[in-house]
Order: sequence, then C-alpha cells, then structure tokens
Amino acid sequence: MIIDIITIFPEMFNDFLKTSIVKRAIEDGKVTVNLHDLREYSHNKHRNIDDTPYGGGTGMLMAFPPFYDVIKKLKKENSKVIYLSPQGKLLDQPLAFKLAEYDHLILLCGHYEGIDERVLNFVDLEISIGDYILTGGELAVMVLVDAVTRLIPGVITLESVTEDSLTDGLLKYPQYTKPRTYKGFDVPEILLSGHHEEINKWRQRESLKATLKKRPDLLEKKTLTAAELEIIKSIKDK
Amino acid sequence: MIIDIITIFPEMFNDFLKTSIVKRAIEDGKVTVNLHDLREYSHNKHRNIDDTPYGGGTGMLMAFPPFYDVIKKLKKENSKVIYLSPQGKLLDQPLAFKLAEYDHLILLCGHYEGIDERVLNFVDLEISIGDYILTGGELAVMVLVDAVTRLIPGVITLESVTEDSLTDGLLKYPQYTKPRTYKGFDVPEILLSGHHEEINKWRQRESLKATLKKRPDLLEKKTLTAAELEIIKSIKDK
Repeated sequence: MIIDIITIFPEMFNDFLKTSIVKRAIEDGKVTVNLHDLREYSHNKHRNIDDTPYGGGTGMLMAFPPFYDVIKKLKKENSKVIYLSPQGKLLDQPLAFKLAEYDHLILLCGHYEGIDERVLNFVDLEISIGDYILTGGELAVMVLVDAVTRLIPGVITLESVTEDSLTDGLLKYPQYTKPRTYKGFDVPEILLSGHHEEINKWRQRESLKATLKKRPDLLEKKTLTAAELEIIKSIKDK
Repeated sequence: MIIDIITIFPEMFNDFLKTSIVKRAIEDGKVTVNLHDLREYSHNKHRNIDDTPYGGGTGMLMAFPPFYDVIKKLKKENSKVIYLSPQGKLLDQPLAFKLAEYDHLILLCGHYEGIDERVLNFVDLEISIGDYILTGGELAVMVLVDAVTRLIPGVITLESVTEDSLTDGLLKYPQYTKPRTYKGFDVPEILLSGHHEEINKWRQRESLKATLKKRPDLLEKKTLTAAELEIIKSIKDK
C-alpha cells in the first residue's frame, strides 16, 4: 500500500514513522509512506495556504488551489482520497478493514478553522476518528494509518487481529498476568485451574458482561447467538 | 493543568510536544506535561513489564505491579487516572470539556494485547477515542491531550471554540476562501453578497443539511428548536 500524506506539518510525523507498527510495515515493504508539504503548492511567494472565509467568520481557512494541485499530481485510478475531519463518517474497525484493502491512500490534513469546501469535490471519503475537535488533521491521520496498517495481511499475526477487542463486536474479557498476587490483589482462581473449557466459558461470559456494562450499544448492533442471549439473560437476572 | 503520561515509548511524544497546540499551552504555563517511562518501574533487571496471560491466549499483557507503583507515586487527591483503551467510554466533545476542568490527569498507555485487569482498580476513567484498534495507547493519549488542551481557558480564543463543529451538536456549514474561482469551481454567490442576515440563514440551513446528510444520528441526540425543525422539514421536502 502507498500512503501519501498532505500536511503543512510534515515534521510532526517523524517520531510516528520511526516508532510505530508503521515503521515495521515500511521495513517489511508492506507500506510506503510519502509526506508532502502543502506549502510547496502555495500560489504565492510567502508560501501561504490559508485565507479569511468569504461571508465573514473567525479564523482562517485552507485554500482550494494548493489541495487541487497536489491531488491532481498524486491521484491515480486506484487512489482513494481521504479527508480527515469532524464532519466525516466515523472510523470504526469494519471501515479500517476496508481501507486496508486499498492500494493507494491520499490523506489530507486540515488545519485552522477548516478547508475550502471545493476541495471536497476531489475527496472520495471524509472520515472522522471521533466526535471531538483536534487542532489539526495530523493526529487523526496517524490514528488512521496505525489502525489500517496493522490490518494489512502479514503486518501482525492473524491471531492477534482475531483476538482484538471489537473484532467480534464485543469488548475483550479481563486478562491477568504474573504475579498471582500483589498488594492484596489476586488473579481469579478459574484462570489458574488449567480447565480450558471452563476458562473459555468464563471468558465468553466476562466479555459479554463487560460489553453489557460499558458499551451496551455494541450489543444492539451485533447479531447474538442463542447461547450469547442466554448468558446475557443470566447476567441480567443476577 | 498537570498531565502525567505513563508509557513504554516516551520518545513517541517528542514531535507532538514540540509542534502541536500543546507546545503553546506549555510555553504559556497553562499545561505541564511529564513523561514517565513505565520500564523504570519494572520489577526485574531486564526492565520487562509484560508477561503471558494466565489461562492461555496469544500475545503478552502489561503487568500490574509497575502500573501500581507509578500510580501510587503520582496520584494525589485531585488526580484523575485515565486508561486509554478500546473498552472505554467514547471520547466526545462534552467529555473533553469536562476533562479540561481537571487539575491533574494521569494517562496510562496500554500496549501488546492489553493490561492486567487489576490495574483498573486504580483507574478513575477508561476512555476510548473510537471503535477501532490501535497498536498502543500513545496516539490515543496524544489525541486526548490535544482535544482537551485546546479547551483549557486561554489556550485558544473563545470564538474559535464556539465556532467549532459539534459544539452546538451540528456539523459545520461549508466554508470558502479566495480565490473566487479556480479551475471552474466557484464560491457560492450568497457569500459574496455582503448580506449578513442572508448569509447567516444560508449557513444555518447548510449546517443542518450537512448534519442530516452525513451524521443524522447527531440530530437525534440534539434538542432542536422550532426554527431548526422547520428548516429540516423544508430540506426533506426538496
């Protein structure tokens, strides 16, 4: 996969590309990441890319021509142009899986009060990483690149992806590691029992319990099996 | 506000602290950010902080004792300990506003397949930045710190915050800046008219239209005024 990132702060990505899963994916040849400084596409000698909004309002907007020019230059037939903004479709795990199948992503980072709406004529997907406001699109792009890169086949093991929270639409069961006891806090006995069948049952129940308690909205979206419905009933009856 | 970040990758935060809004907030004395390397709290000489899960399963878990020790050391009466995880309450703009009022945040970054559940006994809030899986909690912490810092009074102008998308529960209206025309794409005439009342009406309608089209779920959560309901009806009738 080729990922082109359009930003006015390319230097924000140095640590990210050097430390995350993306570093490994780049080294393994699974991903190529190119950073493009939008200021190089400015139409004036001061390298400005922003201006005041027509019709009045606070702050500055990112102008249309620099985005138009850089997209024209980079976009090919198999490219998906994605603009990260709070107006977008919410990123979730199914969407991340879908994006992991594309050959070429062009990711646009907004800033200031937003971008000139005409840019959206050249955007295939407007994506939001959540219902909150960030200073700029750079962190949102890093989140998207991290979430997507780890789903590209061969980047991490299939087992890890399958065991993720949310992959089956549920939160993960509680997990424990050594030591068995510390400062009076113990690991549940069942996990030390060695009875794998019992442990799996406990984990399934705890997974449903956690989802019911913390994110009941996820259960509404999921098609539950008869066994799962029975467990949920017994949790609620308690 | 004091922000303590607990991570096994403190170096991931260098660029972030040097480039974002957080840099300005630190310089202005609004925020102090301290990075703590969790490995310094390891109980063994190899500085390991992870181990295999009890009861079997893939991957490694982050152990309880290092988190226990670092939280004990840092936590004061007015501290909020926050663990960033896909199991948490979804971060949104109202939650970001609430967090911006706290004096002291202690932010825990998870990694590997998760953390020992006993850590949660010492966590005040479990927060997720979205329904997707990241390699680690570092990017999630950056997102939270960016979203919260810009809401601390005096960090950015009140006008900017008030004009944000989502602050009034709606998506923002389309915005345009110079030039008026480029490659055949024009700015809407109304914005060049100078009629502020008409422009405001147009913007209100476009804001509702964008929300209706892209995020109808937001309208369900919002208490709409009679005027807004009327506009929505006229949009739907078209």
